[in-house]
Amino acid sequence: MTGPRFTPLVDSLPATVPFVGPETLERGRGRPFRARLGANESLFGPSPKAVAAMQAAVREVWKYGDAQNHELRLALAEAHGVAPDCIMVGEGIDGLLGYLVRLVVGPGDAVVTSEGAYPTFNYHVVGFGGALHKVPYRDDHEDPDALIGKAAELGAKLVYLSNPDNPMGTWLPAGRVQAMIEAVPEGTLMVLDEAYVEFAPDGTAPAIDPEDPRVIRFRTFSKIHGLAGARVGYAIAAAPLIAAFEKVRNHFGMCRISQAGALASLADTAWLAEVKAQVAEGRAMIARIAEAHGLTPLPSATNFVTVDCGADGDFARRVLAELTERDVFVRMPGVAPLDRCIRIAAGPEDQLAVLAEELPKALAAARG
Amino acid sequence: MTGPRFTPLVDSLPATVPFVGPETLERGRGRPFRARLGANESLFGPSPKAVAAMQAAVREVWKYGDAQNHELRLALAEAHGVAPDCIMVGEGIDGLLGYLVRLVVGPGDAVVTSEGAYPTFNYHVVGFGGALHKVPYRDDHEDPDALIGKAAELGAKLVYLSNPDNPMGTWLPAGRVQAMIEAVPEGTLMVLDEAYVEFAPDGTAPAIDPEDPRVIRFRTFSKIHGLAGARVGYAIAAAPLIAAFEKVRNHFGMCRISQAGALASLADTAWLAEVKAQVAEGRAMIARIAEAHGLTPLPSATNFVTVDCGADGDFARRVLAELTERDVFVRMPGVAPLDRCIRIAAGPEDQLAVLAEELPKALAAARG
Repeated sequence: MTGPRFTPLVDSLPATVPFVGPETLERGRGRPFRARLGANESLFGPSPKAVAAMQAAVREVWKYGDAQNHELRLALAEAHGVAPDCIMVGEGIDGLLGYLVRLVVGPGDAVVTSEGAYPTFNYHVVGFGGALHKVPYRDDHEDPDALIGKAAELGAKLVYLSNPDNPMGTWLPAGRVQAMIEAVPEGTLMVLDEAYVEFAPDGTAPAIDPEDPRVIRFRTFSKIHGLAGARVGYAIAAAPLIAAFEKVRNHFGMCRISQAGALASLADTAWLAEVKAQVAEGRAMIARIAEAHGLTPLPSATNFVTVDCGADGDFARRVLAELTERDVFVRMPGVAPLDRCIRIAAGPEDQLAVLAEELPKALAAARG
Repeated sequence: MTGPRFTPLVDSLPATVPFVGPETLERGRGRPFRARLGANESLFGPSPKAVAAMQAAVREVWKYGDAQNHELRLALAEAHGVAPDCIMVGEGIDGLLGYLVRLVVGPGDAVVTSEGAYPTFNYHVVGFGGALHKVPYRDDHEDPDALIGKAAELGAKLVYLSNPDNPMGTWLPAGRVQAMIEAVPEGTLMVLDEAYVEFAPDGTAPAIDPEDPRVIRFRTFSKIHGLAGARVGYAIAAAPLIAAFEKVRNHFGMCRISQAGALASLADTAWLAEVKAQVAEGRAMIARIAEAHGLTPLPSATNFVTVDCGADGDFARRVLAELTERDVFVRMPGVAPLDRCIRIAAGPEDQLAVLAEELPKALAAARG
């Protein structure tokens, strides 16, 4: 008796996990974190109206969710001024990125991203046999010219940009992003990941043109909406591309409770404005804490602050390890030169007080 | 400007939806159903303990769910007497079937199932370029000998059996299923879909041997647990096969609220026993209603009853259309000879009273 015969592609794949979750780390450590600042979650939580909607939906959870996400798509279409057939709702941006890569990328197809950008996108590309090509960041920003140049050179199927950027927190102005869209080579699709865009200054997101076949944008309820655990993301793109998702998606994949929560959260614009303000305060607090100990916070248009620890990746990894040892969960970019930094989510004062208390000790230990 | 270049496989795929959801039908009709009996959901709802756990978890939904589903896997492992590394939790059986097909099926690979069996499995196989081969049901039961014969003849990668069966509600005794497992050809993996097994008589599920590499079993929280909208299913298989899911799954794909609900539901065995008893009553009531109007209920080991309308597929489709017209949502098998039947979920008395009221009118209309 032997096991199943995997595909040759699957045989070639490693069993990777793009991110190790905080619960996994806690089990390994044998104790919980005091401050959960590593997963770019919204520590300010979901809208009370979303909470109420989800608690009501719990009683209806014996029903499958609406396979068309109809109400949520209508509401998103109205919010963005596009037709509903330009919106695809899915199981977080992660799930939607997986579908998109499956639609477009076959074995050997070229895909371009930045060295150190979102690992889960890379995971999907590799998982479908694509050939990943990476260009460096420039001054801690993603580099549209290099991305487009590489995509043109290779005839890439996809070129990925996150704006604002994860893991650096930096951002490009809308004009720069729009210029990148205009420069997308024929036959390439630009993947514009705007997971953090609601935290960014006005003028960060280019206007949405749902007729433009060169770009697909991704947004999420995991960040400003505080619904990471609900798994709701959406794509905005030209209708023919959105329609193609019907060929591969898990039609009944959405949690019914999550659909209700997202719909209620979208309508609670006062809550979202409040979270945005609180996140800005949190970022400022992280910056003050970092500077007080000789570290350099990068400007951020996200709900986290990437902090330059002032030395190399080995040093930043020691700082991170010492913070972990002191029950503070943070993460850091995976590759040089970005890996001189650690990445800390904005949170309420009591969570950042733990950071303020433990960072100097962690730094002393890392330096000693 | 052109759109993205899809893979040749994707270009060849239709935009299919394995099932049209009841909400979609309601929007098309412009009014809601009075009785929702078509999606094999549990009209008896989730355990009150699961409801409480989910309502509590709503407040923590700003956190991503545990990517390892650790607590739920431990509890499932204990419930089934297997090691946790023999359990994979995922976004419903539908989601897990998609991952499994991706792991095993490449373009042109043969897969064997029954003519009229689960459409979503077929959707995944076609979606990854597999070549579906179908054998007929025998006397409204899936036919293990024919399935195994066809799998051996073709060197199939997968052979699918649901026990109890959907859409017919029939079942095979454990000995028959175990004999099928023993006969699985070298290099074929048997997909044993046991979504409904908790409703079946004792002696329907073969003993679980987690060392056996010839079979992977699927179970779900969508049926007896009443959590269809939560999207929680799981696979039980040999550890090397379970480990392979790490290569392709969406690691942070599970809803945190759903994880909490499933864990609580699993522990509420009294509730599950009560649902099982109520479903048995509901099945008996459907059988009486059907017989009162000259129709033949098939014996069922599931939470639905498949009712032979006594003529051909066209007649059954008319009956279904007339029920729909009268606000009763039911479904039916898609192919002959199974399509002489309609399929009705067991529910509480008030829901089945609607069926009792409308079925004779629908039959009269379909006959006239």
